[in-house]
Amino acid sequence: MKKIAVIGAGNIGKAAAKSVLESPDMELCGFVRRNGEPVSGFEKIPAAKSAFDLPEKPDGAIICLPSRLAEPAEKELLEAGVFTADCFDIHEELPALRRRLSVSAKKGGVSAITGAGWDPGLDSVIRILVSLTMPEGEMFTNFGPGMSMGHSAAVKAIPGVAEAVSLTLPLGKGKHFRKIYAVLRPGADKSAVEHAILSDGYFEHDGCSVEFAEDILPFINTSHGVEIESTAGNRKINFRMRIDNPMATANILAAAMRAAFLQNPGAYFLPEIPPCDLSAEGWKAFL
Amino acid sequence: MKKIAVIGAGNIGKAAAKSVLESPDMELCGFVRRNGEPVSGFEKIPAAKSAFDLPEKPDGAIICLPSRLAEPAEKELLEAGVFTADCFDIHEELPALRRRLSVSAKKGGVSAITGAGWDPGLDSVIRILVSLTMPEGEMFTNFGPGMSMGHSAAVKAIPGVAEAVSLTLPLGKGKHFRKIYAVLRPGADKSAVEHAILSDGYFEHDGCSVEFAEDILPFINTSHGVEIESTAGNRKINFRMRIDNPMATANILAAAMRAAFLQNPGAYFLPEIPPCDLSAEGWKAFL
Repeated sequence: MKKIAVIGAGNIGKAAAKSVLESPDMELCGFVRRNGEPVSGFEKIPAAKSAFDLPEKPDGAIICLPSRLAEPAEKELLEAGVFTADCFDIHEELPALRRRLSVSAKKGGVSAITGAGWDPGLDSVIRILVSLTMPEGEMFTNFGPGMSMGHSAAVKAIPGVAEAVSLTLPLGKGKHFRKIYAVLRPGADKSAVEHAILSDGYFEHDGCSVEFAEDILPFINTSHGVEIESTAGNRKINFRMRIDNPMATANILAAAMRAAFLQNPGAYFLPEIPPCDLSAEGWKAFL
Repeated sequence: MKKIAVIGAGNIGKAAAKSVLESPDMELCGFVRRNGEPVSGFEKIPAAKSAFDLPEKPDGAIICLPSRLAEPAEKELLEAGVFTADCFDIHEELPALRRRLSVSAKKGGVSAITGAGWDPGLDSVIRILVSLTMPEGEMFTNFGPGMSMGHSAAVKAIPGVAEAVSLTLPLGKGKHFRKIYAVLRPGADKSAVEHAILSDGYFEHDGCSVEFAEDILPFINTSHGVEIESTAGNRKINFRMRIDNPMATANILAAAMRAAFLQNPGAYFLPEIPPCDLSAEGWKAFL
């Protein structure tokens, strides 16, 4: 039974805690969060400002921090001999992050699985499997409908925007439409803000619409989806998910955490892990 | 560049040869078949009755023999230091076959990947991935529409049947209907044959229809399909393929052959292999 700490107590952190509690081979030994306070819904679980202040030292830690904040926390844990899994989601930065985490992991004699969310992560594995089954296929990944965390944050960063949600709507063949809902700050100029959004690097290449609202809450929703499709003549492979975004992310993270304990010291991306290592049941149940 | 021999020159063997020829990291060094004759469509490729009679000793061999004939040929190759991949498809016999092949592989200092077709094989990996992403889902595998090799062989084995095709039609939720086309031997009794088919262990648990025909050729078709579906409330994951049966099998076999060279001595099932080892491009292309 491995003792697991969850680092961060947002949507993904809470879902990861639930996933660990439901795993037969892992037990939840605590939450780590900035204020060190108990987490609502998990009042009996120890909480602290640092993993090293928890009543028991964790064997592993699931990193549920925003991508940009994950690395220093993860390196400290790895160097102290704690296995980790994270859901870092900036695709193009993953190879370099994996190299840096690998140094820390080897220093601590443990391993890390990085980018273990649904995309990158699960979908990356699916893309490899689809591609090798039908190398001649044209493959596309279609995201949504669902809220994009990255694009929502990009809108929020624009001056004059108080709150924002960017929905990703799939148009097929890897093309997407962005539906943006924004709440203006007092005195901000609607058309200037709209222009700033539409000319932002995040949005200029896709079709977009901007709608201003009084309140952002009605537009926030954790459901999401993806379709990976590949076609060659009359042959076709599709992988489709309609998921709860934090719950699916957390389940993949918990599976990666389990697999981390089975790898040689170093940092790995999900396609480098034997799928059976991810499952508490091994492969015989899935033959 | 690994030198690969293809063992068997049926539908799957020919497709595997094509797959090897299209791989940047493997070259086709020969066919092995009972009569040792060149294979039509591949006249320039050496052919022999034994892998050890080919002009060059292969580094690896893709076993494209019927499941029941694969084991002795594969063991001989492994013990002689040739890596192997096979598409053995009798689910319940795979764990024991893997153990036996492992002994031979270790003796030869090489590795084997067994059960590397689409089901078992690819689908087994997908079932693990779907199950860990949504552990609370109800998962089913729906086969077809397509011709089942195992069920067709079972009909052909019934006295009075000259030729037969058994089509698998998916009814959803893991249930199937079997549509059987049979050509009678001269003098055979239609209703006795129909009764024998419907009470055979292969068919008694499913809905079936039997139709007698003069010629079996119009019913033979290599297209096939599968859907793995998992549902939990409003969440849903589907993996769907419409494939050419021998071509998809051969592509997975060639990928498994590539990965075999990267494993420690022993025999493995596809879920034990890191997906990136299956791809000539590694994981960065699929991030």
